[in-house]
Amino acid sequence: MIRVSILGTGNVAKHLFATFMKIEDVKVVQIIGRNKIALKIFGNSVDTLSDFSKISDADIFIIAVKDDAIAAVSEYLRNKKGLIAHTSGSVSMDVLSGQRRHGVFYPLQTFTDDRKVAKNSVPYCLEAHDETDLDLLKNLAGKLSDKVYEVNSEQRKVLHLAAVFVNNFTNHLYHIGKEICDEKGLPFAILQPLIQETLDKTKQLTPYQAQTGPARRGDSETISKHLEELKKSGFGEVYGVLSKSIGKLYGKDTNGQHH
Amino acid sequence: MIRVSILGTGNVAKHLFATFMKIEDVKVVQIIGRNKIALKIFGNSVDTLSDFSKISDADIFIIAVKDDAIAAVSEYLRNKKGLIAHTSGSVSMDVLSGQRRHGVFYPLQTFTDDRKVAKNSVPYCLEAHDETDLDLLKNLAGKLSDKVYEVNSEQRKVLHLAAVFVNNFTNHLYHIGKEICDEKGLPFAILQPLIQETLDKTKQLTPYQAQTGPARRGDSETISKHLEELKKSGFGEVYGVLSKSIGKLYGKDTNGQHH
Repeated sequence: MIRVSILGTGNVAKHLFATFMKIEDVKVVQIIGRNKIALKIFGNSVDTLSDFSKISDADIFIIAVKDDAIAAVSEYLRNKKGLIAHTSGSVSMDVLSGQRRHGVFYPLQTFTDDRKVAKNSVPYCLEAHDETDLDLLKNLAGKLSDKVYEVNSEQRKVLHLAAVFVNNFTNHLYHIGKEICDEKGLPFAILQPLIQETLDKTKQLTPYQAQTGPARRGDSETISKHLEELKKSGFGEVYGVLSKSIGKLYGKDTNGQHH
Repeated sequence: MIRVSILGTGNVAKHLFATFMKIEDVKVVQIIGRNKIALKIFGNSVDTLSDFSKISDADIFIIAVKDDAIAAVSEYLRNKKGLIAHTSGSVSMDVLSGQRRHGVFYPLQTFTDDRKVAKNSVPYCLEAHDETDLDLLKNLAGKLSDKVYEVNSEQRKVLHLAAVFVNNFTNHLYHIGKEICDEKGLPFAILQPLIQETLDKTKQLTPYQAQTGPARRGDSETISKHLEELKKSGFGEVYGVLSKSIGKLYGKDTNGQHH
């Protein structure tokens, strides 16, 4: 049995809580947060606490608060025996170095309110100051997911950056695709099989090999037509820069200039 | 029974041939192409032909050649009784208007050599000059897929443009994510669940609602750090322009300038 407490009431805290509650040999001791209304969402099945001076001990304290609040929140755990781990992609483990036992428990996933993420599909990126503590985090993560990685602070920082590209920016491209479809009365669903195949391909081929399209072919005529069509939309600059970046990668000289 | 002939030997021709061969009441009459070596790939189960003067009649002729060759290839079908349809996303139906019966049979998917695409998952976008011919194309497409759409030339043009964003550009973002991971010895597989969730989200939320990340939050500090990290990679411009585009969409003033 691993006894876990969570500090924070945001999406990561909520997701971790929901996941822990499904695992028999994990017990959530307390959910700790300043916001009493936010604490209510966690229901009556767990002890919630807004007074940080009354935190009980636990095997692992998981700090799931905003990046710039991690250090301050960790101060409330100064006299605890448990391991203290934050969940941030971009903050170094060292922010917790004032604490005896410290580490990182970073779920590499995008959590949106009210959307459940398939169990076992979340990669956990772990780091700890101590070998024994790393084993403890591995033990906990292993109960939640098949995908457990040891990732140091330097790697985690770039992982977070890579995630911005493949998640945040990709989602924005979906938005642009949807806008273009909406404009002409086409359903966004028409694009979804193509999007799925784009992803599935990368399981057999590298994205470098899988690349297709006008910029890859160096087809400046199509690129010019597309830039022309995009003039009113404001998405021409995105099109131009991405086409230029692809062209450069494959040594094609296209006129993917900004319009 | 629908008798179909295919003109062309590229990825679309190969995919359609493989799909037709699995459908009992579709018969492939001929595969026609100039390149005899390319024709060999289609094997002995079908009549292949490199002499364009010997084309037999069929119910539907599918022209799956490069965009700028469609008109020329269609001339060889001038005296045929069958319906003539091209498979291009970006060429208007009118390119075939010299032919009595003409239309478009556009599979909205990315076909890569040697990679099979799940049956039924390809949306077919159809257009025909004649109502009866549209029904014939619908009949054929309905045997191949659950997703059959009537899409006019104007809509198809923008669909192709939307596909560049959600397929070609998204794939390039995957490439950048992989490069960033490679650099620090991290496997690209670590990002795949996140990529899958980014896509799955759009089935419940619009991409506009699903957007997360530093540019969405207007978190200029993280954006600056990321641009700094990207200096050597050459991907800073892509990061800057996409962050700026997201910031603009959500009314956030970030410093996602090009470096």
